[in-house]
Amino acid sequence: MSDLTLTTFDWVPETPRGFVRDLRVRWALEEAGLPYRVTGVPFGDRDAEHFAHQPFGQVPWLTDGDLSIFESGAILLHLAELSDALMPTDPRGRSDTKEWLFAALNSVEMASLPWSLLIFSGNNDDTPGWTLFDNFLHKHRLKHLEPVLAGREWLAGRFSVADILMVDVLRLVDRFDGLADYPACRTYVARATARPAFVKAHADQMAHFARADQIAAVN
Amino acid sequence: MSDLTLTTFDWVPETPRGFVRDLRVRWALEEAGLPYRVTGVPFGDRDAEHFAHQPFGQVPWLTDGDLSIFESGAILLHLAELSDALMPTDPRGRSDTKEWLFAALNSVEMASLPWSLLIFSGNNDDTPGWTLFDNFLHKHRLKHLEPVLAGREWLAGRFSVADILMVDVLRLVDRFDGLADYPACRTYVARATARPAFVKAHADQMAHFARADQIAAVN
Repeated sequence: MSDLTLTTFDWVPETPRGFVRDLRVRWALEEAGLPYRVTGVPFGDRDAEHFAHQPFGQVPWLTDGDLSIFESGAILLHLAELSDALMPTDPRGRSDTKEWLFAALNSVEMASLPWSLLIFSGNNDDTPGWTLFDNFLHKHRLKHLEPVLAGREWLAGRFSVADILMVDVLRLVDRFDGLADYPACRTYVARATARPAFVKAHADQMAHFARADQIAAVN
Repeated sequence: MSDLTLTTFDWVPETPRGFVRDLRVRWALEEAGLPYRVTGVPFGDRDAEHFAHQPFGQVPWLTDGDLSIFESGAILLHLAELSDALMPTDPRGRSDTKEWLFAALNSVEMASLPWSLLIFSGNNDDTPGWTLFDNFLHKHRLKHLEPVLAGREWLAGRFSVADILMVDVLRLVDRFDGLADYPACRTYVARATARPAFVKAHADQMAHFARADQIAAVN
């Protein structure tokens, strides 16, 4: 029996709301129907206890009994071992889920995060650095992902944690209008984010941070 | 019984030799003492068969019987399930191995790859874009990794696939003198790359690409 607690920030500014990575974990937990608690740590002042759970001072982390796990990929892989709703049970389906889970993080997000950081910081200008990362994302990643997603509903035969990670990565690209030329990617994101588990996870994250605003307002 | 074939390029230019990602897989296979074959695909002209195994047209991929797996992280996780030499057997050791395997790829390499791409392309100048990624690597990643590595020999209690990935990520940072201020990171890389399995894997990769030069020279 699992005893799951998800830790995220107790508050973040408006801009990242809806995109803080605890969303990936909430979504998986809702898909699996696993009971869990959510707790918060300060966004501003990150103490030694925080770094003991997450060495880079980020969120989320998950505790399952006396195990504490950071990295959204590792957390989702742990949850996938707890629920057949998150990973196929046959060897090929499990292998495909894991390779696409890594591909979402280390091939697609590896290109999309630098790209979105440059946009977010206003450095998406005509410099060679911007061109480098814009090409990295479009020519080397999304151009190749598009025919994959045009040919299948979900990455690993049926819905899995690989889709949760890939969709969350693509959502941030879409926020900055980066999916305009990739209809299969856009349709895939729309199909996944229409799932009740995503809708609930997203609403729960927004409500979590909105409560922090309300508490701050009455203090 | 496993039937393992590793596919890499049949030739690459001088600069990436010693750093092509089949090295990660060779290293793990040598640590585990698993028998394997190595085969090559063209670097220049990547065909549909290549993209069927690796959707982004990269290397490596591994076949194990009728399973074909891309992404070095997914391949190493697969091999870790085959050999106790690559992952502790207790639940906490296995969990720690997986979280640090993801941390190597999605926290450290997420910062080090953009940094090294900017250096490699000559865009490590005084632009805001360069400063953004230089800070991302140093202030947000290596500064926090240094005390972790100062306090332990290996990431997950004993040597594991997490170390193979973290060390291979840090080797590329070290190539561009990025570890100067992190003595524990440097000592960790030196300790790992002194292992006979790394030495053999590295020599084998260099010999693989040197043979391609020799074949080209006599044709």
